[in-house]
Amino acid sequence: MTSNDRELILTRLIDAPRALLFRCWTEPDLIKRWFVPAPWTIAHAEVDLRPGGRSLIVMRDPDGNEFPNPGIYLEVVKDEKLVFTDAYVSAWQPSEKPFMTGIVTFEDEGGKTRYTARALHWNEEDRKTHEEMGFHEGWGKCADQLAALAATL
Amino acid sequence: MTSNDRELILTRLIDAPRALLFRCWTEPDLIKRWFVPAPWTIAHAEVDLRPGGRSLIVMRDPDGNEFPNPGIYLEVVKDEKLVFTDAYVSAWQPSEKPFMTGIVTFEDEGGKTRYTARALHWNEEDRKTHEEMGFHEGWGKCADQLAALAATL
Repeated sequence: MTSNDRELILTRLIDAPRALLFRCWTEPDLIKRWFVPAPWTIAHAEVDLRPGGRSLIVMRDPDGNEFPNPGIYLEVVKDEKLVFTDAYVSAWQPSEKPFMTGIVTFEDEGGKTRYTARALHWNEEDRKTHEEMGFHEGWGKCADQLAALAATL
Repeated sequence: MTSNDRELILTRLIDAPRALLFRCWTEPDLIKRWFVPAPWTIAHAEVDLRPGGRSLIVMRDPDGNEFPNPGIYLEVVKDEKLVFTDAYVSAWQPSEKPFMTGIVTFEDEGGKTRYTARALHWNEEDRKTHEEMGFHEGWGKCADQLAALAATL
């Protein structure tokens, strides 16, 4: 899939209903089971699912170091679309560094779900950094974990 | 009024009902009559008043040069609160440079309206630049124009 110079995109056809994938993205107990590539884990997940609502996901590396990722939701369309950003730590306190806006969509496609995750950046440098941090591998591995989890629900 | 190191605040008690000031902030024909300090004028105003909706205000200097200010609304509470930012040019395309988030509130106070406009920046440098650009004088003069307009409606 093409992406512009400030955007990264990952898309997959997943054999699960939209509503189930949306739940995996928005319910803390489910988020913990797939949202970071193993062997990292999610130590904590908080979701206030509404525009301006806070999201806090704390990732933990194999040594036990924790990495909090605070952000807010900008748009919530149940079972269809989620938009969130790290540009704010709460509504509407700017973060130290606006890095990305995530747009995740879930669409019906031949009895499965077209899952698309886009990361939009404020400049080309941040996009490049994100790509070098392993966007495609990381989000790809997470998408595998998401599909595997959905298959068990 | 105090403000933190990334914020600028202007507040006024205006002798007009909240609903009227909210209209002045959100109706293009009214926006054109007060939103920029004279002798500058507003050449064009577009308002899509909903979270994620686009706002475009084009300012014109006395020589006829035009300065477009695109942004989006993040939160809209009728007659009470407006939040907008230049961090996006549309929902949810990041702008070239996220500079500020504006939070404007309208509260009843002794039969008048407590009008408060806050500009939140992503860093201290942008706040300083905004202050040096004349935030207090500019927004102050606009508040005078807003109060004068409201008195005629």
